[in-house]
Parts: sequence; C-alpha cells; structure tokens
Amino acid sequence: MTQAQRTFDVVVVGGGAVGENAADRASRTGLQVALVEGALVGGECSYWACMPSKALLRPDAARDAARRTPGVADPGALDVAAVLARRDAITHHWDDSSQADWVASAGLTLLRGHARFTGTRRLVVESDEGTVQVEARQAVIVATGSLPTIPSVEGLAAAHPWTSRDATAAQHVPARLAVLGGGVVACELATAFASLGSEVTVLVRGERLLAGAEPFAGEAVLGSLRGRGIRVLLGARVSRVHRDDAGVHVTLDDEVVTADELLVATGRHPHTRDLGLETVGLEPGAPLDVDDALQVRGVQWLFAVGDVTGRTGTTHQGKYDARVAGDVVAARFGSDEAARAAEADAGPWSRYRASADHAAVPQVVFTQPEVAWVGLTEHAAREAGLDVRVVAYALEDVAGASVISPDYAGRAQLVLDSARGDVVVGATFVGPDAAEMLHAATIAVVGELPLARLWHAVPSYPTVSEVWLRFAETAGL
Amino acid sequence: MTQAQRTFDVVVVGGGAVGENAADRASRTGLQVALVEGALVGGECSYWACMPSKALLRPDAARDAARRTPGVADPGALDVAAVLARRDAITHHWDDSSQADWVASAGLTLLRGHARFTGTRRLVVESDEGTVQVEARQAVIVATGSLPTIPSVEGLAAAHPWTSRDATAAQHVPARLAVLGGGVVACELATAFASLGSEVTVLVRGERLLAGAEPFAGEAVLGSLRGRGIRVLLGARVSRVHRDDAGVHVTLDDEVVTADELLVATGRHPHTRDLGLETVGLEPGAPLDVDDALQVRGVQWLFAVGDVTGRTGTTHQGKYDARVAGDVVAARFGSDEAARAAEADAGPWSRYRASADHAAVPQVVFTQPEVAWVGLTEHAAREAGLDVRVVAYALEDVAGASVISPDYAGRAQLVLDSARGDVVVGATFVGPDAAEMLHAATIAVVGELPLARLWHAVPSYPTVSEVWLRFAETAGL
Repeated sequence: MTQAQRTFDVVVVGGGAVGENAADRASRTGLQVALVEGALVGGECSYWACMPSKALLRPDAARDAARRTPGVADPGALDVAAVLARRDAITHHWDDSSQADWVASAGLTLLRGHARFTGTRRLVVESDEGTVQVEARQAVIVATGSLPTIPSVEGLAAAHPWTSRDATAAQHVPARLAVLGGGVVACELATAFASLGSEVTVLVRGERLLAGAEPFAGEAVLGSLRGRGIRVLLGARVSRVHRDDAGVHVTLDDEVVTADELLVATGRHPHTRDLGLETVGLEPGAPLDVDDALQVRGVQWLFAVGDVTGRTGTTHQGKYDARVAGDVVAARFGSDEAARAAEADAGPWSRYRASADHAAVPQVVFTQPEVAWVGLTEHAAREAGLDVRVVAYALEDVAGASVISPDYAGRAQLVLDSARGDVVVGATFVGPDAAEMLHAATIAVVGELPLARLWHAVPSYPTVSEVWLRFAETAGL
Repeated sequence: MTQAQRTFDVVVVGGGAVGENAADRASRTGLQVALVEGALVGGECSYWACMPSKALLRPDAARDAARRTPGVADPGALDVAAVLARRDAITHHWDDSSQADWVASAGLTLLRGHARFTGTRRLVVESDEGTVQVEARQAVIVATGSLPTIPSVEGLAAAHPWTSRDATAAQHVPARLAVLGGGVVACELATAFASLGSEVTVLVRGERLLAGAEPFAGEAVLGSLRGRGIRVLLGARVSRVHRDDAGVHVTLDDEVVTADELLVATGRHPHTRDLGLETVGLEPGAPLDVDDALQVRGVQWLFAVGDVTGRTGTTHQGKYDARVAGDVVAARFGSDEAARAAEADAGPWSRYRASADHAAVPQVVFTQPEVAWVGLTEHAAREAGLDVRVVAYALEDVAGASVISPDYAGRAQLVLDSARGDVVVGATFVGPDAAEMLHAATIAVVGELPLARLWHAVPSYPTVSEVWLRFAETAGL
C-alpha cells in the first residue's frame, strides 16, 4: 500500500455526469481540478439509470407506435436478447474507459477511490491501490448522488431484493417480477419488464402512482400498466418478505405475492453517510443544504450539486446545478477578475444562480403513455398561494394527434398564475409523445411568458403541439 | 332558379379552416356572420392537404421507427388498402356534414356557392340552387386560399397531371409516379407514394430541395429520398409532356421519363382571379395586400386572411391571421366599446396584430427525416442585416437521440441576433422527431428570449430536446 499526498485547487467528489460537469466548468479559469470516483466514471445515469432504463423502454414504445398505426403490421413480441444487447452497448458494457478518456482530455485529474473528509478542504481517498491524502487549496464540490432506500420490512434485506441497479443491468428477464413502489422507477421498470415478458406485480403503498405529478398522470399510467396485464395493488402494506427455492414471497394484509425477483423502488436518499462530514461540522446522512450558488450554507469552501443536496432528483437538474456551481467556483477562486466581479453581483436567472430549481424543474417518465411535467402542479401552485388558473385539453382532440393514430389518447394541462397576467408556472403532458413536448413548456415557464404572448407562438398543423393553441382558446383568448 | 337577397353584418368568403376561424371570432361581439363556401366546408387542409397527406405519411414514419429499433421486428410492407382506408376515414370520405354542423352550432350562416364581388360590401353567390345577392353591412373577409400553379410546359395541361388534390385523394397507387417540383408538397408526396410501392421520380428545376429551408435540411431530405430508392433529378428542365397508352412521358434535356401519373407540385398562387375584385378597385389574380390587422390596404371594410394574402402559405399561420382578423372585425364593428378602444390602441404582439407573420412563421415537412423550421434562416437573417450568430449540433450526438436508435441522424440549428444579446430569431430541426420539437423554438422566438435565459430551461435527460443544452454550450455558455 502506498501513501501519497496530492494537492489541487478544487476537488470534486463523485464522478457521475453531475460531478463531471462541475469539474469541467470549475477548471475553465485555470484552476487545477481533481475528480474522485469510487466506481464507474459517468455514474448512475450512464450505467444504471437513465440510459439503460430508456434503452429497455424504447423498443416497447416503438412497437406500440407501429401497433397503433393502421397499415403497419404488428411487429409481435420483442427480441429480448436483442434488447438486452442494445442496452449493453448503450452502457458500454459497464466499461468507463471512454469517460475516463474524456476526463483526461478535459484537463482534469481522475482519482479512483472512495473519498472521505478529514477536515477543512482535506480528504482521504482510499482504493485497492492505496491511500491518498488530498488537499483542496480552494474548494470542494460534493456530487456523490443518492442511494436507493430499502424500507425496514421484516426479511426484506435478507431476501436480496433488486434495486434499480440490478434491474437496469439485468442479464435475464425474471418470469415473475414484483415491484415495490409507485414512483418513476417503479412505473418505468414495470413497463419495461412486462414488455420483455415478465409477469409483473406492482405493490404501491399509497393510493396513486407518480405522487409528485398531477393526479391525471398517475391515473393514465395506472390504466396503461393494467392494460398491459400488469397487476397493480394500491394501498399495499407489506408486512414480511422471505426468499426460498420457490421465489421471493411478499406478505400483504390479505395475500402473499410470489415472484422470482423483487425490485425495491421506494425512493432514494442522499449519499452522505460515509463521507466524513462530521470532520467538517456537518451531519452524515443528511442532505447538504446549499444556497442558489450551490455553496453549502455556512461553509465558504464547500459546494454540493445533484441528488446530494435534496434540491433535485434528476440527472438533468443535477447537471444544471453542476454548471452553476462550476461557474461559481471558477469565478470565486480563479484568476478572472471580471468573472469574480460578475459572480459577486449575480442575481436570479444569471449564470451563477440556480434559479430554475425553484420554478422550472422538468421530469419525464418513459412509460406508455409518457408523462412529462415542469414547474408547479395545480396543487403545489395553490399551496404556494398563487392565484391559480388551470387549462386542460384532451390530446386525442388535437388534429395532429388524431392523424397519428385512431387510438391516440392523452391529456395536457397548463397551470397559470393569474395575478401575473396568466404567466405559465407549470405544465403536464401525458401521451405517447409527451417527452419531447415538454421543452416548449419549460421555455415558457423560464421565460415567464404570459398566455397573451404565447398566443403568437403558432403551433404547426397538424402536430400534437397544436394543443398550445387549444390551451389559449380554452383559456378564453 | 331562385333569386334571393340576404344581408349580414360580416361575410366571410371561403369556408376552409382559415375562413371558419375568422367567421367564428368575428361573430363574438354579436355580429351576424355568413360563411360562403363553394366546395367542402373545412377546405383544402381537411380534405386535400395537411390531413390526408399526414395520414399517408404516418405509417411510413411509424414503420421506420420500428425498423430503427433493435429488438423490434421489421413490420415489412405497408398494407396499402389499410393506409388508404385510414386516409379516407380522416377525410370523413370527403363529406363535410360535421363541419357544416359546427358552422351552425357556432351561430354562423352557411351559404353554399361561389361568391363574387359586385361592388362595395356586395357579393353574388351562385350555386346549383340559384343566385343570392349578399350584402355585408360592415365588413367582408376573403379567405379563398390558393390554387396549384401549373407551369406553361408544352402538353402539360393536356396530359391531365395530378395536382396535390389528386394525389392526396388517390384511390390507387400508381406503379410509376413522376413528381414535378422540389418543395414541401413534392417531398412529402414522393415519400408517401414510395412507401406505398410506387416507383417515384422527382424532377426538380433547381439545384436543391426545400429551397425556403436551411440548405442542410434539403440535403438531408435529398439523401433520404434517394436512400428510399426514389430517383431525384436536380436541375431538370422539362420541355414537353404527353400522355399515351403507355403513360405520361416527360421530356427532359437528355432523357424521357415515363410514369403512370405525373404530379405537379411547383407552387401555388392566390385564389383571387374569379372573385370580381375589379368591381371594388382591386386586381384579380393578385394577392390581397393587407396590414398587420389583416385589413386590405386602402379598403376599410375589406379584410383578407390565409394564402390569399401572400403573407403565409400554411394552414396554421392562416388560422392565426384569421384569429387576428376576426378579433379586429369584432372589435371595430361590434358593440363592445372596450374592445373597440383596445383595438384602436393596439400595438405589436397584441391580439389585434399578426406580428408573428414577420418573425415567427413555423413550417413542418413530414418527410423522413422530418424537417421543421421557424423564423429566419441564416441566409434570411444576414439579408435582413442582422448581426448573425449560428449554433448547430448533430442530433445523433445527443444522448437522448442515441438511445432511441443506433441509426438516429439529424441536425438542429439556432440563428441568433447577437446585437440583441443572442436572442433566438430562427431555428431548424431535421430528424425523425423534428415536428414536435419545433414549438419550443417558436416560443423562444416569439418570447424574444436570449440564450442566457434559455440556459435555465433545462431539457430532460435523456430526450432529444437536450440539444438545447448543446446549443448553449456550443455558443460558449
């Protein structure tokens, strides 16, 4: 074992997509930046979340589109081996060498190992290669993400349940899959494995799916899952789990569900327990509380981005935080005096403040129908005390949707702040093509555009986007 | 034959989608409005353009998406009869009774027949039922659209070529189809008929396709058409056409192309020749020159909307003009004093001015790849003297596109006005899903949003919309 000492201007802990972005941007004013990663560079999103899950879901979506189109033959069952092989290609077979190459080409130093704070701007990085004492002259950015939360149910841990990592990296399709949870991961992976031939049962503690979305979104996905032969049990209370040769047995109030694998998708928590945060006066296991510059409150040299802050739970918003944090660190600690002055003077919606985290966080769920939303739901807007106005429209009534398929079904909704002249503060789209329809709403929310101005943004005919005209007409324009 | 006399407050000439919108909105302050239509209510778009063409194109797009997705079986050849039957259903078998019902339910009076001006605010409407003298107390809105232009080539008219109407309403698929033209209609219908089994030859006078779009868009479609086995001849000069029992023979400089049908798609001209415009001091055959309130310049009681103005060439933009014109007529001639005052005081981007016609006209081409653009092309922006900055990005390099298909290919581009802080003034998307990606750009252009603000509009990961992040990064943000 070697014992080495390294010093950098900035150390970024966590080499997922979020950490990579923060490190890259922090280095742009000449600061020397190290990126520390204990597993694969590229992180959860590249290898065990967004990319492989989308790879598993895409074939079903493409097949569905064909099935819904008169004149196109039903492609029939998916070729499971081909789908898994494509997923393997998209994850580069869980080999991060191309990402490591990028880190080097960006002028960053990659330190492989597990990092733990030992004091102010000091960390130790441990790996099979040995231990390195690392000092950051200026700043540390924490981007260690989150871990799946395993509920404390009798026998659950001992039954070796799947987490999202096991599901997205699965090399076989279980004949029977039980899913614990009703959020994004549960809905997406239930859809994917059902399309690949699993008999899927979804056990939801609450009374609806996608609790963070508009109720109609969860209802649409519930209908879709059931329509695909997936058994969805709402209000399901799991009292015990055990595994034997016949499978995993999940005991509910009034029945026992048996499956070959049990996927736990009941939420995630910040990955801060084993970081040595106690050595810098912070609480291990808690989220890192940051301001809009992503600086940990009260600790001038410490920044945090991504899931670890509790502000965001998606790759894209974590990367946004990372861009802001990287720019802030580069400005505050680098040699560019103009940047330093601009950052010191920065207000909302400047490049140095993550203002969108409060107003315009988008989320997409790649179920069928797809679900996408941004900003405030109606309920959240009312809770925030806004003078709320809601306009909704059935997508199948849009000409551009009807021409795509006689079976097209979906719903879209805007939440408007009437006190500000019907500015768009939230939007939800549920439908076969919802994912790519969201960005128009995100731009409207970020641009704080009132409906009267959007009146002049003419959607092309015949597209599904014509729902924007229907929104305005429904609102009385 | 009966001879009747009818008086209304407002008469709208032309009952396509554009005329319907104008009439509906003009009636909202209590004015009595008549809608005159000589063919099918609902017009070109519903029966012979947007809707049937999209119906003919959609199966190919859905099949293509399946083919590009590993794990999904190739659906094989399209079921031509099923595609045509679906097209027939979408056009309601060219029966306009549901549209006529809508007209009645909207409180409008439908007059069937051909309208011709006989003087100020006076028209005659002729039909098989007889002749009606119609007077408009307040205003007339012309929405008669456009007609296909047949070039003056020896023998062409006598060879009974197809226009877009014949092609979109075709009840059989010709074994060999020749297409004259290289614009939207030519590219779309060549794609559709090739997908249905026709051997297609496209004869383009110019050196590129889609001359109004960015050059890379036409190049992508050219490559796609040729990749589908369509023969595309650029710089094709047609000297003579004749039809005999063997088919239609099109003589070029160095060869004769023979086909079973010849589709002429070389542009359209305003439908104003047979309108009696000479009786009100205007020139038959010319476009009706209107201001931003859609009033014909110099004639206070006359308005024009849609293709007939020469301002726009699409259904959606014509409907936009119609909404503005209808609101202006309702305000100027109706009994709502507040509306009258607001209209008299109206400026750009108010509901009474069609400001988007100058800045934000969207166009979608449903070829494979789809092509969509809004606002200024780079060339047009430079011609307009803007301080132009262009950012472009290959869509296959966006993670969300790569996960859709290993064969995904596309390109997107923003045109920025640097003098106004990199405000978006134009955008082009070329790719399999481009049509629904456009509205985000349309909102950005209409909102006059600078790239620095769009920086906070976070695209969801992994969607193709992430190209918006790449735009900003490419621009140096």
